[in-house]
Amino acid sequence: MLKFKKTGVIKMGKTLTQKILEAHLVSGKYKPGEEIAIAIDQTLTQDATGTMCYLQFEAMGIPRVKTKLSVSYIDHNTIQAGFENPDDHKYLQTIAAKYGIILSRAGNGICHQVHLERFAKPGETLLGSDSHTPTAGGVGMVGIGAGGLDVAVAMAGGPFCMVCPKVIRVNLRGKLPPWVSAKDVVLKVLEIFGTKGNVGCVFEYTGEGVKYLTVPERATITNMGAECGVTFSIFPSDENTRKFLRAQAREINWTSLSPDEDAHYDKEVEINLSELVPLIACPHSPGNVKKVEEVAGISVDQVCIGSCTNSSYRDLMIVAQILDGKKCHPDVSFVVAPGSRQVLRMLAKNGALDKLVAAGARIAECACGFCIGNSQAPRSNGISLRTINRNFLGRCGTKTAQVYLVSPETAAAAVITGQITDPRTLDITYPEIEMPEQFLIDDAMFIHPASEPEKIEIYRGPNIGEPPKNEPMPEKIEGVVTIKVGDEITTDHIIPAGSRMKYRSNVPKYAEFVFEVIDPEFHKRAKTYKEQGKHNVIVSGLSYGQGSSREHAAICPMYLGVKAVIGKSFERIHAANLVNFGIAPLLFKNPADYDAIEQGDELEIPSIREKIKAGEDLVVENKTKGTKFEVTYQLSEREKQILLAGGTLAYMKGKA
Amino acid sequence: MLKFKKTGVIKMGKTLTQKILEAHLVSGKYKPGEEIAIAIDQTLTQDATGTMCYLQFEAMGIPRVKTKLSVSYIDHNTIQAGFENPDDHKYLQTIAAKYGIILSRAGNGICHQVHLERFAKPGETLLGSDSHTPTAGGVGMVGIGAGGLDVAVAMAGGPFCMVCPKVIRVNLRGKLPPWVSAKDVVLKVLEIFGTKGNVGCVFEYTGEGVKYLTVPERATITNMGAECGVTFSIFPSDENTRKFLRAQAREINWTSLSPDEDAHYDKEVEINLSELVPLIACPHSPGNVKKVEEVAGISVDQVCIGSCTNSSYRDLMIVAQILDGKKCHPDVSFVVAPGSRQVLRMLAKNGALDKLVAAGARIAECACGFCIGNSQAPRSNGISLRTINRNFLGRCGTKTAQVYLVSPETAAAAVITGQITDPRTLDITYPEIEMPEQFLIDDAMFIHPASEPEKIEIYRGPNIGEPPKNEPMPEKIEGVVTIKVGDEITTDHIIPAGSRMKYRSNVPKYAEFVFEVIDPEFHKRAKTYKEQGKHNVIVSGLSYGQGSSREHAAICPMYLGVKAVIGKSFERIHAANLVNFGIAPLLFKNPADYDAIEQGDELEIPSIREKIKAGEDLVVENKTKGTKFEVTYQLSEREKQILLAGGTLAYMKGKA
Repeated sequence: MLKFKKTGVIKMGKTLTQKILEAHLVSGKYKPGEEIAIAIDQTLTQDATGTMCYLQFEAMGIPRVKTKLSVSYIDHNTIQAGFENPDDHKYLQTIAAKYGIILSRAGNGICHQVHLERFAKPGETLLGSDSHTPTAGGVGMVGIGAGGLDVAVAMAGGPFCMVCPKVIRVNLRGKLPPWVSAKDVVLKVLEIFGTKGNVGCVFEYTGEGVKYLTVPERATITNMGAECGVTFSIFPSDENTRKFLRAQAREINWTSLSPDEDAHYDKEVEINLSELVPLIACPHSPGNVKKVEEVAGISVDQVCIGSCTNSSYRDLMIVAQILDGKKCHPDVSFVVAPGSRQVLRMLAKNGALDKLVAAGARIAECACGFCIGNSQAPRSNGISLRTINRNFLGRCGTKTAQVYLVSPETAAAAVITGQITDPRTLDITYPEIEMPEQFLIDDAMFIHPASEPEKIEIYRGPNIGEPPKNEPMPEKIEGVVTIKVGDEITTDHIIPAGSRMKYRSNVPKYAEFVFEVIDPEFHKRAKTYKEQGKHNVIVSGLSYGQGSSREHAAICPMYLGVKAVIGKSFERIHAANLVNFGIAPLLFKNPADYDAIEQGDELEIPSIREKIKAGEDLVVENKTKGTKFEVTYQLSEREKQILLAGGTLAYMKGKA
Repeated sequence: MLKFKKTGVIKMGKTLTQKILEAHLVSGKYKPGEEIAIAIDQTLTQDATGTMCYLQFEAMGIPRVKTKLSVSYIDHNTIQAGFENPDDHKYLQTIAAKYGIILSRAGNGICHQVHLERFAKPGETLLGSDSHTPTAGGVGMVGIGAGGLDVAVAMAGGPFCMVCPKVIRVNLRGKLPPWVSAKDVVLKVLEIFGTKGNVGCVFEYTGEGVKYLTVPERATITNMGAECGVTFSIFPSDENTRKFLRAQAREINWTSLSPDEDAHYDKEVEINLSELVPLIACPHSPGNVKKVEEVAGISVDQVCIGSCTNSSYRDLMIVAQILDGKKCHPDVSFVVAPGSRQVLRMLAKNGALDKLVAAGARIAECACGFCIGNSQAPRSNGISLRTINRNFLGRCGTKTAQVYLVSPETAAAAVITGQITDPRTLDITYPEIEMPEQFLIDDAMFIHPASEPEKIEIYRGPNIGEPPKNEPMPEKIEGVVTIKVGDEITTDHIIPAGSRMKYRSNVPKYAEFVFEVIDPEFHKRAKTYKEQGKHNVIVSGLSYGQGSSREHAAICPMYLGVKAVIGKSFERIHAANLVNFGIAPLLFKNPADYDAIEQGDELEIPSIREKIKAGEDLVVENKTKGTKFEVTYQLSEREKQILLAGGTLAYMKGKA
């Protein structure tokens, strides 16, 4: 069914990726692997990453954002179990009013869903302080997730620096059969590509199958490209895109976009949609994909439908139709969080919401909610089926729970049967969901910037701190391996979300939870070493820093005195965040050296400033073991300067 | 406007209270002030008090509940920010299946609202492990809040022991004017009676004004009688009651009930509904009542509509009508939590839900939610207007916030204007809300007991512990004043709800939060004294233990080694809970002795067992101050035996 084709390097036509990136090039050349800087048209933030982003933006002293459009969404910490989150919300509201940013209030919906509905534009660039920003690729927009500091730089008018990506063509043939939907497509992509090894790549979707996918379906697919670690995923902008934008009363934003017919791709893969079956990502990785029928019959305790991956009008309509007249199994707790107020209002008006409630759905707020583990944790050892994008260990709030990622169809089937069920085996005709000619448009929950920004006083509750400062990189690193971790460590492992997330604006407190899920003692050791004048060093395997874009996975270690992470490989966003906060992301030259190093080993990396300036590899002396090994790094000149300065804020101040 | 009338003691007709209580008398005589035991027809529990209640019920070894009806509601801890609450839910589900209890699933609504809709019966008795159980008085039912242990005893077939109450007649004249509603009536009652001094009383509502109040309005009034500290509040069962029950498809449950025309009341007060104006309870007590117009103009940060007080169909319909076509003020966070799935579905069907969302409402789950402080905390120093029943310091989750209690009408006005606003000043015609001829009835979220209970295995996650055991009362108390507190200490002060509530089934952990809101070091001191072999003693002012019925306000102090509370007066439910868990509630004979005692004073109460058996007053020696003072107690013979045994569980075992 699948064919891999390694194409040659003969110069051919342009990919859609190349067309958009070249049109935005500020410096560098469009050549995969080289650093380029691109102009950013739009930015988005969410509240969990946004407060730190705007604290950093404030530190830059710019009176008003320089982007075409910047939107600040409140969608993560909407439970508000204490003053911290509402304080953050008020801070964000005053910041937005003062600096020319649109605020999307709590209750208006999930940033990616709302941005797709109301703002995403084919051919433009969007930088977002959330790893699922590539959702906007569903309308042919380049949407890139980044740390909050990078977004702050973009709002200040700076370009976004990145490695020019390799472009992988995902050629879609055929048409999805009944009961198989967009989530199954992207789970197939995850099965093919896995969750590591795709850094510096882009997925570009092409082929006859594209025309059978609506924009929300495309957005589900581009959304979860983040789980493969690609920089972004993108679909062409075609008649379906035009129809979607027209239904959102913004056909004016439409433009036709597609790759050249003879475009050169670095790699190609073909997926025949007609042959797809319902798929499921098993615990604890989105890449652990199986056929639903292979795990059918497992009892289910909870079904959660929502998140930026599957909470669109189409997603909830199909669930409402499947469950029409049915009742939730008594052993299943069934939760639905609509993706946006637009979705909620349309479902309320057309009766679908009542169908869901009648079936036993607990309706949660239009927000990220359970996807980030701040609510609806399953019971101990519970089995939870979710339409979300990540099932990392403990992310759901219950460490012993088993989370499976599925399509809305497969989720609805389990609501009825109480077990993992291939939806094709339900005795129901697959409902046809018509996309509306006109979505319900109500922008009342956006607050536009103040007409007299000078009159706006920024609100700072006791939860709003200063962004922490860092020292320049020392002449040499003298420290200890504070922790040694394995492969595929996610930013959820490094710094948890859920109930801890309310400390996002309070770094000293939040830093107490670094590596909490795998080693709750880490922060104490790190503090002790720091007090002893030793640098902390983290040792890791492959794909360190997967998942969420949260820069606190770098800020909090920085605060604890971490100076370097030595790993086998790094994910893109997190590597950039490490550099942004003055932590060296170092690569084992010989991955086997990973095996010979242990937690507690005393390390020395002499002449680190000198060698990084000179672009030379570094030697690490393991004083405990009496051994030496070499490490390298993949840093542009700009990144080297940032790292030596102790991070981007210090670097920018040095330049000013 | 108000007239107090002290009637004579000439024997006259019977009050409604007397009629129902006499019909349920198991022992004792109907004579105010004397202990009586009454048969309990129905019980209800909610999940926050329920787990401990059922652990105690299990310890009694009864195979099936002996009540006519017992319902276990899951409505408090539905945020589920960790495994603890869903573990509790699953425990409750298996307990209900095994022991003959109906389970109301999370999402089905708030216990009091749902019970009123589906189960409450005129003339019957309901014992609930929640202080707002008197809500059922809206249909002429005797609804009494109690500790979970008392409810467990009732489920085991035992009677409920209480002081035969004094009956206060609240005579309602006239008819409410536009923009004034049931909440204003009960705020007027709070203004008249305050939140203390009403222990051992019942409010019985009579008069021509009754007929203008629908059952949900009556239920709002009986609900908040709890804030005055009365045992229950009750309305007659009349044609309105019949209409309500008919609309709930249970006219069969109706019976006509009213007091005799010449009934004798211990006290009478008259309220002319026609003269009422919108009222507001200011921070931090439901008894701090003012006219809305007196505080109009204060900026509002948050408006929360819901809770067992004001979340009925009528309550949300009036808000939806007022806000129809209006938009939420940009500085107000507006949250609505419908009281039940019945309410939610009816609003979804008739378009009112969409009107609320269109106005900017954030829709929270049908549950207690913000009312118990587990979500929607206001910002620091935030002003929050709520339709709930309690505004104790810190209960909302933000210690510095100011919470005001208002009617749905006054709440809706602030949504529009962004400030406290007398709704009569809005330029809107007061909407007429017709009560439906037929409510939408869908009982699918109730799970009925198992047909084969012996096959049900009780689920016990790691959050489900054993109920803690206590020692018998020692021969003498030798201890320390671990804390001295003032007047009107609520059970929220003693043991917080909110984010701490998830530890309800884990007493050693939960005990760490005793008095957290006023003295976070308390539990450490108590533990230290306990380890030193000293007893802990709490000294308090008036009305100790107001508010929620939570028995953890006794269980956790018991666990920490508290043996006595010496106070000026106690609230009914909490005093009973103290006895149930072997803590002596002792009263200063001379309240002035309160002034001469300090935290840290070493106390001795010699011969406590002997003197309590003999019914003699006790002498307390203050060894630090070198003084002595007398204390007394109000305990029935049964209560004395329970106290000396070390609590009800030990007492029942001793009897068996």
